[in-house]
Amino acid sequence: MKKLVAKGATSLALLSLSALPVLAQDAEAAPAVSPEVAYIFNTLLFLIGGFLVMWMAAGFAMLEAGLVRSKNVSMQCLKNISLYSIAGLMFWITGYNLMYTGVDGGFMGSFGPYSFDAVGGDALDTGYSTASDWFFQMVFVATAASIVSGTVAERIKLWPFLIFVVVLTGFIYPIAGSWQWGAGWLSEMGFSDFAGSTLVHSVGGWAALTGAIILGARKGKYGADGAVHPMPGSSMPLATLGTFILWLGWFGFNGASQLAMGSIGDVSDISRIFANTNLAAAAGVVAAIVLTQVMYKKVDVTMALNGALAGLVSITAEPLAPSVWQTVFIGAVGGAIVVFTVPLLDKLKIDDVVGAIPVHLIAGIWGTLIVPLSNDGASWGIQITGIVAYGVFTVLASAIVWFILKAAMGIRVSDEEEALGLDKVEVGVEAYPEFGTGSQRM
Amino acid sequence: MKKLVAKGATSLALLSLSALPVLAQDAEAAPAVSPEVAYIFNTLLFLIGGFLVMWMAAGFAMLEAGLVRSKNVSMQCLKNISLYSIAGLMFWITGYNLMYTGVDGGFMGSFGPYSFDAVGGDALDTGYSTASDWFFQMVFVATAASIVSGTVAERIKLWPFLIFVVVLTGFIYPIAGSWQWGAGWLSEMGFSDFAGSTLVHSVGGWAALTGAIILGARKGKYGADGAVHPMPGSSMPLATLGTFILWLGWFGFNGASQLAMGSIGDVSDISRIFANTNLAAAAGVVAAIVLTQVMYKKVDVTMALNGALAGLVSITAEPLAPSVWQTVFIGAVGGAIVVFTVPLLDKLKIDDVVGAIPVHLIAGIWGTLIVPLSNDGASWGIQITGIVAYGVFTVLASAIVWFILKAAMGIRVSDEEEALGLDKVEVGVEAYPEFGTGSQRM
Amino acid sequence: MKKLVAKGATSLALLSLSALPVLAQDAEAAPAVSPEVAYIFNTLLFLIGGFLVMWMAAGFAMLEAGLVRSKNVSMQCLKNISLYSIAGLMFWITGYNLMYTGVDGGFMGSFGPYSFDAVGGDALDTGYSTASDWFFQMVFVATAASIVSGTVAERIKLWPFLIFVVVLTGFIYPIAGSWQWGAGWLSEMGFSDFAGSTLVHSVGGWAALTGAIILGARKGKYGADGAVHPMPGSSMPLATLGTFILWLGWFGFNGASQLAMGSIGDVSDISRIFANTNLAAAAGVVAAIVLTQVMYKKVDVTMALNGALAGLVSITAEPLAPSVWQTVFIGAVGGAIVVFTVPLLDKLKIDDVVGAIPVHLIAGIWGTLIVPLSNDGASWGIQITGIVAYGVFTVLASAIVWFILKAAMGIRVSDEEEALGLDKVEVGVEAYPEFGTGSQRM
Repeated sequence: MKKLVAKGATSLALLSLSALPVLAQDAEAAPAVSPEVAYIFNTLLFLIGGFLVMWMAAGFAMLEAGLVRSKNVSMQCLKNISLYSIAGLMFWITGYNLMYTGVDGGFMGSFGPYSFDAVGGDALDTGYSTASDWFFQMVFVATAASIVSGTVAERIKLWPFLIFVVVLTGFIYPIAGSWQWGAGWLSEMGFSDFAGSTLVHSVGGWAALTGAIILGARKGKYGADGAVHPMPGSSMPLATLGTFILWLGWFGFNGASQLAMGSIGDVSDISRIFANTNLAAAAGVVAAIVLTQVMYKKVDVTMALNGALAGLVSITAEPLAPSVWQTVFIGAVGGAIVVFTVPLLDKLKIDDVVGAIPVHLIAGIWGTLIVPLSNDGASWGIQITGIVAYGVFTVLASAIVWFILKAAMGIRVSDEEEALGLDKVEVGVEAYPEFGTGSQRM
Repeated sequence: MKKLVAKGATSLALLSLSALPVLAQDAEAAPAVSPEVAYIFNTLLFLIGGFLVMWMAAGFAMLEAGLVRSKNVSMQCLKNISLYSIAGLMFWITGYNLMYTGVDGGFMGSFGPYSFDAVGGDALDTGYSTASDWFFQMVFVATAASIVSGTVAERIKLWPFLIFVVVLTGFIYPIAGSWQWGAGWLSEMGFSDFAGSTLVHSVGGWAALTGAIILGARKGKYGADGAVHPMPGSSMPLATLGTFILWLGWFGFNGASQLAMGSIGDVSDISRIFANTNLAAAAGVVAAIVLTQVMYKKVDVTMALNGALAGLVSITAEPLAPSVWQTVFIGAVGGAIVVFTVPLLDKLKIDDVVGAIPVHLIAGIWGTLIVPLSNDGASWGIQITGIVAYGVFTVLASAIVWFILKAAMGIRVSDEEEALGLDKVEVGVEAYPEFGTGSQRM
Repeated sequence: MKKLVAKGATSLALLSLSALPVLAQDAEAAPAVSPEVAYIFNTLLFLIGGFLVMWMAAGFAMLEAGLVRSKNVSMQCLKNISLYSIAGLMFWITGYNLMYTGVDGGFMGSFGPYSFDAVGGDALDTGYSTASDWFFQMVFVATAASIVSGTVAERIKLWPFLIFVVVLTGFIYPIAGSWQWGAGWLSEMGFSDFAGSTLVHSVGGWAALTGAIILGARKGKYGADGAVHPMPGSSMPLATLGTFILWLGWFGFNGASQLAMGSIGDVSDISRIFANTNLAAAAGVVAAIVLTQVMYKKVDVTMALNGALAGLVSITAEPLAPSVWQTVFIGAVGGAIVVFTVPLLDKLKIDDVVGAIPVHLIAGIWGTLIVPLSNDGASWGIQITGIVAYGVFTVLASAIVWFILKAAMGIRVSDEEEALGLDKVEVGVEAYPEFGTGSQRM
């Protein structure tokens, strides 16, 4: 357009030259996507991404309900709906502002509840609705809490767990998150974590690992002679359903982390992210089934499920830049991590009921480490700095909270209660009252 | 644009420079969101909201399948997929036009099947596609029918129930709905019910209550001495899954009830609605778990689930205007309502299998009553008028239908059939043929 | 714009009156939806449609997990997550290009992995992001593979099945698909299949039928005397959940097959498709429940579920053009097909574990055949040509692969393994270790 109008302008016998450039200027300046339309698209991205990630709360609930024994299934359901609720409230009361407001290169934001735009709000300059942004960020913190829930299942008391969730979602996660997504010190240093391999998954994984060590293993899980006694989950279809829900939700998790959909470049990038996210998960599954076939001569379905999740976690730090080949490699290594580290944890007698530590922590580290492969702007050293910083902070902060809870009210049920099952002891509602025999077995 | 040409035409002798700024001015004034783009956004809102609310049909199916005993689970699945189908057909045959066409301040619309836009329809003036509007409104009527299904479970016969659904979704709901959303008399009076605390949830709840009273309680539920015998649901994870599905669907239920997404004010309001909807549900859960812990020393997972739903129902009458503090208050009271009214119904020997009456009827009344707290345009008196009007009409209309069905074909299975379970008697397919022992127990 | 300036440049000496109307004219002609905004809408349609269809993978997993016996449930879960993963990888390695690149009236496209747009891609001319298109098309091929999985359940070995999936999703489906959606010979001839009654559902159905015949029936299913021994599925709520998931996903399957959302005509058509898709499924359910009531005096819930799916498959070949009356007719016939052909297959001793052949193959043929009823551009003869072409090709290609696999590695477990259940034999993880008794029964 520019060239053409310039040409026309040369032959303007009368019509003063000064006038037409204004006209041309204005015609050109009319953006193909107006700021208002971009605002709607951006907000819509947060809403769609937000409900997809919200749905992941159901995914964790089903995955964990399927992977615990039937005598603890009601408890797991209760913990998941409660933690999602608490996360939502805490991210309003303290979380959002701690993470995003006034961090300014520092180590945390400000204290205080978050305020949404007023009704009919039209502050165009933000480029999206503040409430949609809050909603989208809120569902992420719930994910971090869900990760802990699975690892510490089958022996933790309800209320100490929920109090831990209060601290994790209201303080630990937002403070840690502020370092990077709140434009804090790590972000200034150049750390790179697109959608949260480290900020969400490793933070959840470190908190889970700390909890698992402090809690100790379930009774009977590890024999005196080093034997590992499997405690099979009560429902493979629920675990499978949970995995598919998480996979679906991950399109929102990674895709909407593009944070904008108001240009063709942005929506094309979201599309790349969808494709890469799916391919990394697929590669994780294939790696896991091939490896388990080779190593054990059978294909363990729980490894396939966790392989998918590990592929997803692995690509989360950088779902946009990798080529397909790189994506498949990143996801496949994620799947392999699960196959190799699940038995490793058992050797260390760290009892991770659902395999959340390999999936979220180890694959999260892997995904964050490998970012420089595809992203020229990232540095290996800074990636490691970030990983270590998040690890140290989360382990320390979590340990303090777990120890205080342990001293103040105890965090673990008694051996008799553990044998009976948490559903009878703390919930009072059995998950499968008509056909479950979990409380008599194991 | 019209203005520009008119103006330009008057001063074209020289094309004074003054014309051009006007031209530029007008170019700027061109709406930032064109009517065509707004039309696409509005329609997309109905489609996304519609599929989310459609998904609530699965939520009700899972919630109810989890809360009935295993001998009646197949029946509950069958009833839910059938009622969703019937609702869809009836809302085309009579429902939509009865509710929306030519109500004009009156008590009902017109009779006759609804017609969609022709293929390639481009009637820009409506501002959205008629078929998308139909789809979105249709899934609401299915919700009302689903509410009834849960309450009357485990003793109602299949076909009388389905015939009731025909009448409810084809006539009772649309006529009642026309009073408000069809621009009928209550709407003219100033009644306020944004997304249907009364129009959908209480209407469903009143119909359910009427059915429960006419049907009577399940055999053995209430002892002669006033004892209440619990009949625990067969699967807590399915009930939990159902609750999460409903929670997810509610973003469409409330969010898309904004009815427009073609401006930044509208999409920002939808975002507020998403955030408030989530926070009310979260508050409902927290209220329910804290109260049950205090009252019973255990945390009943079914109370947590119903607490979430009651929080959602409570905020549905006005999900936009409340501040976060108000939202949390409204939702928490909803959760408390469940904890206190579930035992109350048992005292009255009203047998509500899944707790739908506390959740949808009582919390629906609460949500409608409290609208004036946050919405200056609403009046306490008119809110009460609306609540009473919907109650009287729905109870009377439902009672007539239930009594006719009872006289004509019977609505309840025999005691022997009830003991055997509806799956064997009416469906011929057991829900869990390999491990369910429901028919031998209770 | 081009025209205006060119014209202006020639006549600007006076700026004749004729210029301004042109200017105004052009200003008006400026598209109300800019190409950039249309690009975003089109891409968003593929992304939303894509994640809805991706979700169908979970639907098939749940449907099949519910319809097999508990001793084979883990295997069915494993097969479904594995096939979805393999389909995704194969559709990148060979599928997309074989189906869509350079078919040009012929019988297949070109070989080689697909490349997405680069990061920040802004090739406006395509009208949508290439990665979004790939994602949407990829989830379709997974659907075709899922169909096979259900039919051949409970006796096929894992790895031969997965190798079949490699060939089906990487070669058979894409080559067949290229004939129509890749602008191949059938498309040039005028064949009509909007969203894949034939291309997806019948292709999957033919492959499943071929596999079922070559595999043979499950031991004990058919007695020597012609008796059919029912082998009831292990969980009706999971089967119901799966059906609802598929129903939800179908809005993406059919709706996003409009392939564009950047005009009010397109988004209105998508809305019609949503409404029709829902009504066809509803009609399928009602037909199935009425017919089973009349024929068997009970209403089999699995027939209701398969009735919904058959209604959906039936409307898939032409979800846009039919009037509501036509839609209801098409869907109801789909539901009737299920009721009548499920027993027919048993008479032929073709053991289709989940009823996929009636639902996907027979209803798919019906839906394709009936297109000319509502679509003037379609011809009965050409529809039949297409149906036969797809049938012959898929049966031949599938048979070759199945026979090679049978010769090379065997495709069926031993009788003892079948009796034990595939979960113990091939997966090593029981689906319901605490309450399943599947391996002892049947």
